[in-house]
Amino acid sequence: MDENIRALFRPKSVAVIGASEKPGKIGYAIMKNLVEYGYEGKIYAVNVKGVEIEINGRRFKSYKSILDVPDEVDMAVIVVPAKFVPQVVEECGKKGVKVLPIISSGFGELGPEGKKVEEQIVETAKKYGMRILGPNIFGVVYTPDKLNATFGPTDVMPGKLALISQSGALGIALMGWTILEKVGLSAVVSIGNKADIDDADLLEYFKDDENTNAILIYLEGVKDGRRFIDVAKDVSMEKPIVVIKAGRSERGARAVASHTGSLAGSDRIYDAAFKQCGVIRAYTIGEAFDYARTLSNLPEPEGENFVIITNGGGIGVMATDAAEESGLHLYDNLEDLKVFANFMPPFGSYKNPVDLTGMARGDGYEGAIRAALQNPNMHSIAVLYCQTAVLDPRELADIVIREYNESGRKKPLVVAIVGGIEAREAIERLNEEGIPAYPEPDRAVKALAALYRWSRWKHRQGRP
Amino acid sequence: MDENIRALFRPKSVAVIGASEKPGKIGYAIMKNLVEYGYEGKIYAVNVKGVEIEINGRRFKSYKSILDVPDEVDMAVIVVPAKFVPQVVEECGKKGVKVLPIISSGFGELGPEGKKVEEQIVETAKKYGMRILGPNIFGVVYTPDKLNATFGPTDVMPGKLALISQSGALGIALMGWTILEKVGLSAVVSIGNKADIDDADLLEYFKDDENTNAILIYLEGVKDGRRFIDVAKDVSMEKPIVVIKAGRSERGARAVASHTGSLAGSDRIYDAAFKQCGVIRAYTIGEAFDYARTLSNLPEPEGENFVIITNGGGIGVMATDAAEESGLHLYDNLEDLKVFANFMPPFGSYKNPVDLTGMARGDGYEGAIRAALQNPNMHSIAVLYCQTAVLDPRELADIVIREYNESGRKKPLVVAIVGGIEAREAIERLNEEGIPAYPEPDRAVKALAALYRWSRWKHRQGRP
Repeated sequence: MDENIRALFRPKSVAVIGASEKPGKIGYAIMKNLVEYGYEGKIYAVNVKGVEIEINGRRFKSYKSILDVPDEVDMAVIVVPAKFVPQVVEECGKKGVKVLPIISSGFGELGPEGKKVEEQIVETAKKYGMRILGPNIFGVVYTPDKLNATFGPTDVMPGKLALISQSGALGIALMGWTILEKVGLSAVVSIGNKADIDDADLLEYFKDDENTNAILIYLEGVKDGRRFIDVAKDVSMEKPIVVIKAGRSERGARAVASHTGSLAGSDRIYDAAFKQCGVIRAYTIGEAFDYARTLSNLPEPEGENFVIITNGGGIGVMATDAAEESGLHLYDNLEDLKVFANFMPPFGSYKNPVDLTGMARGDGYEGAIRAALQNPNMHSIAVLYCQTAVLDPRELADIVIREYNESGRKKPLVVAIVGGIEAREAIERLNEEGIPAYPEPDRAVKALAALYRWSRWKHRQGRP
Repeated sequence: MDENIRALFRPKSVAVIGASEKPGKIGYAIMKNLVEYGYEGKIYAVNVKGVEIEINGRRFKSYKSILDVPDEVDMAVIVVPAKFVPQVVEECGKKGVKVLPIISSGFGELGPEGKKVEEQIVETAKKYGMRILGPNIFGVVYTPDKLNATFGPTDVMPGKLALISQSGALGIALMGWTILEKVGLSAVVSIGNKADIDDADLLEYFKDDENTNAILIYLEGVKDGRRFIDVAKDVSMEKPIVVIKAGRSERGARAVASHTGSLAGSDRIYDAAFKQCGVIRAYTIGEAFDYARTLSNLPEPEGENFVIITNGGGIGVMATDAAEESGLHLYDNLEDLKVFANFMPPFGSYKNPVDLTGMARGDGYEGAIRAALQNPNMHSIAVLYCQTAVLDPRELADIVIREYNESGRKKPLVVAIVGGIEAREAIERLNEEGIPAYPEPDRAVKALAALYRWSRWKHRQGRP
């Protein structure tokens, strides 16, 4: 593992160069996020004017140069204007800093001149054995160490998904989305201009990171395609990667070119490359996070037999449609399925989709879920619920959480609850517990299918 | 217009037969919803024991029979057990009631015997010139008259969409969904066993209902296919119809058969029929409501020129992909588009998708939106926003609402805002004002495309 990249996520000390005492400034926001998210390493403020900075009653004196900091610094977050960055990087080198997230913009994204400065900075960093993230980024988050060195939202929910964004604006918006939608994250990385550290470097790190189970990348374009493919394939053997890659239509690809100033490359080439290296492609933001929930939280299925448990015929049919379309196999053995008859009225149906009927209460669901979790011939489960007056969806959520935990979470299980405000609360409760839950049956099934796709790909490569 | 069906939505007086004084009973819930939702006509409780019923401090004496009610009754909601229903229907006939929503279950859905009773009831109703809704339903809502005669949620948001559900359980869950997601409704109708009133009857009513702009049907199967097609085609000439029809896969169709006890019919036949009569088919619940938002709220476009205004290259590209895939035409005339250069920094792009850049503030959006609304060559607009620190999404929502209202809402406009909690609030604010807003750019574009699909179909039929 690259020690410098490790320092990007698990630094023992962080300096903010360009720290500010003024709320509203990025140099203040980074300090504030570091403090508020609870980073426990040492935090040093660097500011040429030597101002004192107060965050929530905690006072930081600031040093006029990183060279004045009386301690080792693992990571220095750089927020100073572009023209000062080369000098600051040089000083960081002398100081022996390991990694430099450069928030500042005004480099390669402006054109050839900025690009040249960017290259010089990377040269300097190399000379001293440092790595650079960015420039033109919003920072980095690593939840296991309570590190939030961004100017984005603070209340990121801890979890097992690492999020990498090439777009700064969209990356921050997606952080907000994960908080709202209860998607648990291990890390967030803004990679901006990728002058040095790129997707492949980060993938390599996350491959060995015990706190990360899956990686989601918002990608606009790749510089070194060969390396990306090689690394992505290697990583996919261990952990699933989801990529959102826009620009799949001809007009969309032209818009990418105009936006990034670089050719997006034929979308068919990307598509083929992703397939080859086991990357799960998502076409929308919603789809990407739907998949990320199952891929980062659930164990791999040990077989193809999928069981749907529902209280509504209609949503059962929708789930069945989605299963057939996404290549999931509904388990058909009536001898095994008969067990579900114990948990439904006589007019229910134990054929798969198992219909507990609209009369289903907590005990019916509890029994059916437990039976499915216990039967070794049933390999994956979708629990569907259409909100009725006889069972509060939040009660169902608690039942699912209890039964799934007691079973040891050994097979994949997804939940879909259709309804109003109580349904939303139930879905949030499940997602907070790392049980993928959705407001629509087809989304739950398609997300489970993404886990199957990755798992099957891995087995085709000869991996257990 | 059928006077009896009109009485289903706009009764001057309602009787609840089987009204109950016990919270938890359906006969209580219906009374409670009628009172709480603010129905202003007369409400009569009928209960064989003659109990007094108190709802929120308002006391209702109950009559032992509908025949004892000293007034005309337009609609009688029947909640008594199945075995008493035939007699109650007879009495309603004698009383001169116009329409009978029969909540009670235990008829055709149980098999041939129940089916026979159901047919007898319909015979009785016909004899007296009454119409029957159901049986086996959760009731009916008509928001313009504050009528909520269901045991579902009370706080339905008024709007221009009529919702018809064949499934009771799913229908109630969908009512909850519309409240949560701020989908405005004119009506909700549970049609259950369709012993008498069916989808076609309701479509005919909504065609002429000034409070309804679009109709969404959750359909499991159709009895009289020919009539459905004829009526749907006729209605589609005036107002768009969205249908959610599950069971499109082979396995899904089998599950429908097992659930409803009737053959679902080949899905390809449904698909062809929907296309022929201008019905917009939705494959998921989410998609259906996404479409319903544009179809029930927006005017038809007067041409094909579509403009995307965004602050983020990434979401602009996603919207462009969606536009190209769903047949929307991005307007290309640079002479016209140049106007947008006034509202962006020099590194923005006035080419469509118009990129105001991540620096865009309220005034930039305001100017760009106004310019697009004013230019007669621009026929439809998507406003996209990726949440940044420089503009609160709720402020953007207010700007959109103001500009769209001041323009007279003459062309279709959709909004997508990607972000966290403030983004969700902004989306809700827009939807409450009847401006379709979504958390993802592709959903906004595809919903706009549904409006285009319907409008083009209509023109192909020779309609202006």
